[in-house]
Amino acid sequence: MEFDTVVRNGIIANASECILGQDIGIKDGLIACIGIGLPVSASTSVIDAQGGYITPGGVDSHVHLEQWNTPTGDTWETGTRSAVCGGTTTVLCFASQNQTDQSVLPVVEDYLGLAKGRSACDYGIHLILTNPTKEVVEKELPLLVRYSGITSVKLYMTYHPMKLGDREILDIMVATRRLGITTMVHAENHDMIELIIETLEQRGQVEPYYQAVSRPKIAEAEATYRAISLSELMDTPILLVHVSSELAAKHIRDAQTRMLPIYGETCPQYLYLLSDRLRGENFEGAKCVCSPPLRERPEDTDAMWTSIANGTFTTFSSDHAATKFYAEGGKRLGLINGRPVFAKIPNGLPGLETRLPLLFKGVEEGRITIQDFVRVASSNPAKLYGVTRKGAVLPGYDADLCIWYPTGKLEPFVLKNSMLHHDIDYTPFEDMTFTNWPRYTLLRGKMGWNRDDGGFIGKFGGGNYIKRTVSALAGPRNVFVNEWRPPI
Amino acid sequence: MEFDTVVRNGIIANASECILGQDIGIKDGLIACIGIGLPVSASTSVIDAQGGYITPGGVDSHVHLEQWNTPTGDTWETGTRSAVCGGTTTVLCFASQNQTDQSVLPVVEDYLGLAKGRSACDYGIHLILTNPTKEVVEKELPLLVRYSGITSVKLYMTYHPMKLGDREILDIMVATRRLGITTMVHAENHDMIELIIETLEQRGQVEPYYQAVSRPKIAEAEATYRAISLSELMDTPILLVHVSSELAAKHIRDAQTRMLPIYGETCPQYLYLLSDRLRGENFEGAKCVCSPPLRERPEDTDAMWTSIANGTFTTFSSDHAATKFYAEGGKRLGLINGRPVFAKIPNGLPGLETRLPLLFKGVEEGRITIQDFVRVASSNPAKLYGVTRKGAVLPGYDADLCIWYPTGKLEPFVLKNSMLHHDIDYTPFEDMTFTNWPRYTLLRGKMGWNRDDGGFIGKFGGGNYIKRTVSALAGPRNVFVNEWRPPI
Amino acid sequence: MEFDTVVRNGIIANASECILGQDIGIKDGLIACIGIGLPVSASTSVIDAQGGYITPGGVDSHVHLEQWNTPTGDTWETGTRSAVCGGTTTVLCFASQNQTDQSVLPVVEDYLGLAKGRSACDYGIHLILTNPTKEVVEKELPLLVRYSGITSVKLYMTYHPMKLGDREILDIMVATRRLGITTMVHAENHDMIELIIETLEQRGQVEPYYQAVSRPKIAEAEATYRAISLSELMDTPILLVHVSSELAAKHIRDAQTRMLPIYGETCPQYLYLLSDRLRGENFEGAKCVCSPPLRERPEDTDAMWTSIANGTFTTFSSDHAATKFYAEGGKRLGLINGRPVFAKIPNGLPGLETRLPLLFKGVEEGRITIQDFVRVASSNPAKLYGVTRKGAVLPGYDADLCIWYPTGKLEPFVLKNSMLHHDIDYTPFEDMTFTNWPRYTLLRGKMGWNRDDGGFIGKFGGGNYIKRTVSALAGPRNVFVNEWRPPI
Amino acid sequence: MEFDTVVRNGIIANASECILGQDIGIKDGLIACIGIGLPVSASTSVIDAQGGYITPGGVDSHVHLEQWNTPTGDTWETGTRSAVCGGTTTVLCFASQNQTDQSVLPVVEDYLGLAKGRSACDYGIHLILTNPTKEVVEKELPLLVRYSGITSVKLYMTYHPMKLGDREILDIMVATRRLGITTMVHAENHDMIELIIETLEQRGQVEPYYQAVSRPKIAEAEATYRAISLSELMDTPILLVHVSSELAAKHIRDAQTRMLPIYGETCPQYLYLLSDRLRGENFEGAKCVCSPPLRERPEDTDAMWTSIANGTFTTFSSDHAATKFYAEGGKRLGLINGRPVFAKIPNGLPGLETRLPLLFKGVEEGRITIQDFVRVASSNPAKLYGVTRKGAVLPGYDADLCIWYPTGKLEPFVLKNSMLHHDIDYTPFEDMTFTNWPRYTLLRGKMGWNRDDGGFIGKFGGGNYIKRTVSALAGPRNVFVNEWRPPI
Repeated sequence: MEFDTVVRNGIIANASECILGQDIGIKDGLIACIGIGLPVSASTSVIDAQGGYITPGGVDSHVHLEQWNTPTGDTWETGTRSAVCGGTTTVLCFASQNQTDQSVLPVVEDYLGLAKGRSACDYGIHLILTNPTKEVVEKELPLLVRYSGITSVKLYMTYHPMKLGDREILDIMVATRRLGITTMVHAENHDMIELIIETLEQRGQVEPYYQAVSRPKIAEAEATYRAISLSELMDTPILLVHVSSELAAKHIRDAQTRMLPIYGETCPQYLYLLSDRLRGENFEGAKCVCSPPLRERPEDTDAMWTSIANGTFTTFSSDHAATKFYAEGGKRLGLINGRPVFAKIPNGLPGLETRLPLLFKGVEEGRITIQDFVRVASSNPAKLYGVTRKGAVLPGYDADLCIWYPTGKLEPFVLKNSMLHHDIDYTPFEDMTFTNWPRYTLLRGKMGWNRDDGGFIGKFGGGNYIKRTVSALAGPRNVFVNEWRPPI
Repeated sequence: MEFDTVVRNGIIANASECILGQDIGIKDGLIACIGIGLPVSASTSVIDAQGGYITPGGVDSHVHLEQWNTPTGDTWETGTRSAVCGGTTTVLCFASQNQTDQSVLPVVEDYLGLAKGRSACDYGIHLILTNPTKEVVEKELPLLVRYSGITSVKLYMTYHPMKLGDREILDIMVATRRLGITTMVHAENHDMIELIIETLEQRGQVEPYYQAVSRPKIAEAEATYRAISLSELMDTPILLVHVSSELAAKHIRDAQTRMLPIYGETCPQYLYLLSDRLRGENFEGAKCVCSPPLRERPEDTDAMWTSIANGTFTTFSSDHAATKFYAEGGKRLGLINGRPVFAKIPNGLPGLETRLPLLFKGVEEGRITIQDFVRVASSNPAKLYGVTRKGAVLPGYDADLCIWYPTGKLEPFVLKNSMLHHDIDYTPFEDMTFTNWPRYTLLRGKMGWNRDDGGFIGKFGGGNYIKRTVSALAGPRNVFVNEWRPPI
Repeated sequence: MEFDTVVRNGIIANASECILGQDIGIKDGLIACIGIGLPVSASTSVIDAQGGYITPGGVDSHVHLEQWNTPTGDTWETGTRSAVCGGTTTVLCFASQNQTDQSVLPVVEDYLGLAKGRSACDYGIHLILTNPTKEVVEKELPLLVRYSGITSVKLYMTYHPMKLGDREILDIMVATRRLGITTMVHAENHDMIELIIETLEQRGQVEPYYQAVSRPKIAEAEATYRAISLSELMDTPILLVHVSSELAAKHIRDAQTRMLPIYGETCPQYLYLLSDRLRGENFEGAKCVCSPPLRERPEDTDAMWTSIANGTFTTFSSDHAATKFYAEGGKRLGLINGRPVFAKIPNGLPGLETRLPLLFKGVEEGRITIQDFVRVASSNPAKLYGVTRKGAVLPGYDADLCIWYPTGKLEPFVLKNSMLHHDIDYTPFEDMTFTNWPRYTLLRGKMGWNRDDGGFIGKFGGGNYIKRTVSALAGPRNVFVNEWRPPI
Repeated sequence: MEFDTVVRNGIIANASECILGQDIGIKDGLIACIGIGLPVSASTSVIDAQGGYITPGGVDSHVHLEQWNTPTGDTWETGTRSAVCGGTTTVLCFASQNQTDQSVLPVVEDYLGLAKGRSACDYGIHLILTNPTKEVVEKELPLLVRYSGITSVKLYMTYHPMKLGDREILDIMVATRRLGITTMVHAENHDMIELIIETLEQRGQVEPYYQAVSRPKIAEAEATYRAISLSELMDTPILLVHVSSELAAKHIRDAQTRMLPIYGETCPQYLYLLSDRLRGENFEGAKCVCSPPLRERPEDTDAMWTSIANGTFTTFSSDHAATKFYAEGGKRLGLINGRPVFAKIPNGLPGLETRLPLLFKGVEEGRITIQDFVRVASSNPAKLYGVTRKGAVLPGYDADLCIWYPTGKLEPFVLKNSMLHHDIDYTPFEDMTFTNWPRYTLLRGKMGWNRDDGGFIGKFGGGNYIKRTVSALAGPRNVFVNEWRPPI
């Protein structure tokens, strides 16, 4: 037994247990062995974790990079670089169908082509469906599952013109159930929001803050309940993405109590930021515009923490969808002739790099356990999306590791955007104090981030494309309403 | 004090109290006085109630008669005759907009013209909106409220092409909130039902029974929750019509617990009939096709009784929408070339005449109180729809009375359709045993039904059109989500 | 038809309907007739209500007067005088068994003797059971029901030595179910409170404010849930007295949703006062010590209003249990050697006179309807406790009336204790602004309070003892858990 | 790296992940290493798992063996032998205080002495408190935690004379919170049950079936809610033992939703058996008498499965408390003069050996996942009770393994009591069909059970006493009601 690398002296944290005093032996990019006192040869690199936690490399399952229809300041290079520097070794990004596209095969091909050879971490892709023709859903989707390992689709219940009606969602569910793949749903009631935006504009209430007003929690709660109902009728698992408020989380919890295969996701912004952040002077609020919006009450951020800790949320993602505050020429998007218009501010925040450190703060402050951390940040995203061999520090898994500083060892520091590795000119978490941060990130055994010495040392193109399998979490139950069952 | 009529020896039942030993003095169609030992002159008719209950004449707030778009075997004459013979003295029927109608004023005018001089009981009309243009909603609706006393609209969330989208509903709510009028909602998720019907047809499952399968409870529950959410956002009262299942009732109850102005209605068929009735041989099941459909479990019929008794349901209506089983030429609708096709069976049951007796059975069997009976069958429908001077046996109210047999005095009898006064060739309640029935019905002091002597003795055209006022039940609360409020 | 008194021009308000333009004809203390334009003779007194509401005289079903074991500053005379001046015409007080009493017959006899000939309003009595021997429960209780018209008992789950264990409560329920009488329950978990008081005393936290700390909401919620469970097992109706917090109200609501015969009561202090009132300097907080205590959050007072409006609370009582702040010799109870000791402060507030005006404020401010007002303040207490002929303004009922000023007619005024008619040296509602107040109170047709002219003009001893019947509200359902049913 | 034993070709199942293709290297009773292709020397035993699951050895945290006050037919030898033969390698048994015991130190000492050198598996002990004097709770409990590693106590809310009042429970919680140890609660309302038993006996309803009638679900639900309330007040974690019904599970779930540290346990009998089992002729029903009793509806057994799968239940134990059906001399306990008297039938069922196979049936039938299995049967019991180094198949853990047959490889067989290794003359699971069973059980690396060859080959006295640490699951939250906090 000879290892390329041995990691010593860490606390290996998985989603259920932590173990101490064990070495991790890495060979050919895999964890070959975990045991006491593994042998080291001359050619073996030894990494001393010095008592810090060793968690699986982060799996960020909700990342927008270089989508044709989403503004972004990050390229595949800068985005994945920031991922690695924040402890994340796998990202799942979105190939997005244009509403006029009759076929999604070229969409996927193009997007894969775009990413090829540029990513600093491993990556997979989801497919956003905005024009789910019979051809796309019944013919192409199975091909993508089988040949491209694309085993998840994302649907929007809001945003013109991407939003789908209930019938389109049901039709897609027929296919995703049959294929055993995961359906991600952005749940907000479009018509409510559309009406509110119109009236706000009529009233001249267009500053960034009104973006939060325009998408009330009831719009999220209603659509969440509806999506769950559609799922229950069709016996088809769904993931509610970026849940932001207590009532939506309650609907998910209730469904889980009844054993429906309903999954939930939240994001760092919904743990830490409230809508008063949108009130900033000088258009500063524009930096925090995302959908669903930041909420007004601490009860909601608290509920998000609780919903991680009590198991309601399955995954924790960044929903990284970043635009520079100062666009080319110093222009600020959403400021029209010097006047703010919230509806024109690009939605989305940068967050790939800060995702894990922000969640780890919750561990250090006692809001969640280290097991909760691993479960939602790595283990479950890997399982739900069929990323085999990732999301755990176990023999046979990829040697994707995020090694933290021993608790109390790192001097508390204040975050500045300049410390980050994305290509965005701000972070919404500026000036937040941290007491820990990823010290080393290993991607398949190779160090990509060494905070103590060298910083980012990964390689663009070093990341592999991941052909994914179907979900390892609970799928259809074969429990039906009445005497009807969905088409197979 | 001289009276046209004095009613003696009854138990006067209102929605809160019952009083004994009091006479009712009627003058000029009104209850002029209630008191002990009222004086009687030679010209005074005396009615001896012999210890039976005297309830307010029934107010059936959900009746379909001679709608252009609804099959019906009953005319204004036969329909209202059956109403009177069943103790009902007021019906609220529907003028229905065609989807191509740009204006509803002629719709209403035509429908009023149709009814004029033909009704045997008092009547008002609701307006069904299927094409809620800006003109209709903002200009015409206020005119109808002000000049025609039409203070309620009904919306469909299902049925092509009548169904409205969420945005249309929201826009209508702006108007109904402003006008203070009641919005009735038929809540079933259209897309779910449409998909199910398509698959059932593909599978050849088209017998009447599959009509119940095609409209599962989850479709009602989802749409009910959605309608309540829309209502909460807009701070606009709604009535959920013909609620049929436990979960939908629970959503209403929860909303009421939070003091939202959400009202609920159920109908006799949901108290007594289960979906096995749809299984009848020889296409008999077609007699029980209605929407929402009959449900499969006694738990649901029980829940409907409970929801009357615990106050969740505001009103109890017949949803009379009757078609002859044998149409002209002995044809049976829904039987296509001798093969059943449930989707072609006209929806709706006859029920105007049996509504009150069926509910009264619940009183005699101890499921609800006599006060509950009055509340949902007369008092609340009058209040909710702005029918002043009806729905109670009190001085100043119209002398609309339904006088019952003293408990235990009527020989139990088995109902046959031949006993009824509608022009429909069946009743879904055939062969049910009754121990009571309206003995006398008085419309504004005039006897229209005397079961002991003469039967129907009312007059076609004797009924007046009722210009209604706004709802007397709780309206908007001026409680809003977030910092947004609906347009005034 | 000749009347002793005719009341004109008021709005007659009952628990379901309001009627205008009707006269009330009173004869021999009863409402003989309600009708339009009743005749008036020379001997008829005419009262002009001038457009004000005429509500039934208040029925205060929870009043402590001259109990041997409860400190009180009010006598039967001063207490009932204040009742009449506040619009209340019936009080239900408590004969209380001493724990050493083996028989309750003398207890009742003594208490009836004490009250005899002294009360200014009609009165009935409940029996507090603190030593429910087999003899008392099985032999004496039936006698009291049959011969004395005492049809309700009250139990304590807290307070040493009055508290009963679950088994004692169950045994009493066997009897009350059999007799059809109402069981009132003071629900707080004794052991929780006892432990907290001990620790607070050890920590020196003994100021009045700590009384609120010592009886947390969880103690009320737990005992409420337990009492409901005992009731469900035994199929025996109960009333939870003086409910003060949201969760306890929720338990009651949930039980009612399931049709359990669970009733709830709240009191004025839980609508208006928060526990910060206990913080008063100079021991002022002692004026607001009651059990359950005032709560800390407006959410709880709001929930109490909501629970009246949505029908959860059946009755609204004062729980008048008053002690002078300055006892004889200027002593203040609970101040031991100049140091406060909350556990020694007598529990209870004065409230008989202010009960109706405080609730009526809710009507004027739009929190509840006038029908809600009548329902909880008069109609339901009369029904629940078998006080026939009271609680409604209807022919055949006692002419107990409370006539209010027309809305907007009374100059807003600030309440001072000197305006009240009890014999207590403070009111917790001092300095509250009122816009209405009972103008006239009639007890069985006789004016007892004329605010415009004469003030209190009632007669001590003018009140009659009321022999009560069994409850008119829903009783046992004959629905049982499992295959066991309680002893009959 | 040289191993005593290497286990190959199994699917290693832990509470979060399963891994394939890895070898387990065992050295000195510990899992020294997990990795691919571990080296084997001449002295290494190799176990070929042939594709079967390798789960951690079972931790049965609720076992009654040779308690002075509990009838049992099993000795430490026969009980623990049956444990090992059923895949269980750790049992936690109960030292039980007599109500007259003023000190528990001798109780523990005696019980430890009794077990010493006799157990075939590792074992720890809980302490049952029935007389929690100040001395016991404040002085002795800390000693037991510190010196004996007894870090859990069990309390009864029912059973005379063991039951404790709320105040005693609160006082114990002060201590257990301070010590960080787990409080187990048997939650049934004693007074309800006592009353029911008395009435059943009066009615002559004494056959075994009435044992189920005598302990209705509402008694469990009430006590569970009360225990949770006490726990919330005191901020002290508790485990509700042997939960049997849906409503009790719902209370636990609701508490967990709110992040209270409430834990739940269920047992095999509540997954599979209904109360009709108590109806057996010839007194057969006596074999299934346990408390809480078997429930009447499949909804309850279903709810228990659901509550394992959705995470509500923390642990799954046997509650092994077995008595021979035929006692000495062929006598059957509970049959008094040939007549059954359920109250005299010893409570409790045998179940140590069948626990894991019964739960594993749920895995094979798709009701729960293998991860759920490990979590409740091994991992969580170890964490909750501070059994370090057990409950997972991970390097550094004890090599306690249960190796199953590969799915589909074992011929389905029908269970007979003769196949079991306890000293009880029946099993309630007689004639149930199984498709899997533990093939090999290893205790600290030593094979104790080889179903294919040799059967039980363990060693009496081979089990070690386990000094336990405090719970590794979530403890007090430092969230308090009001402004009061429990004594530290």
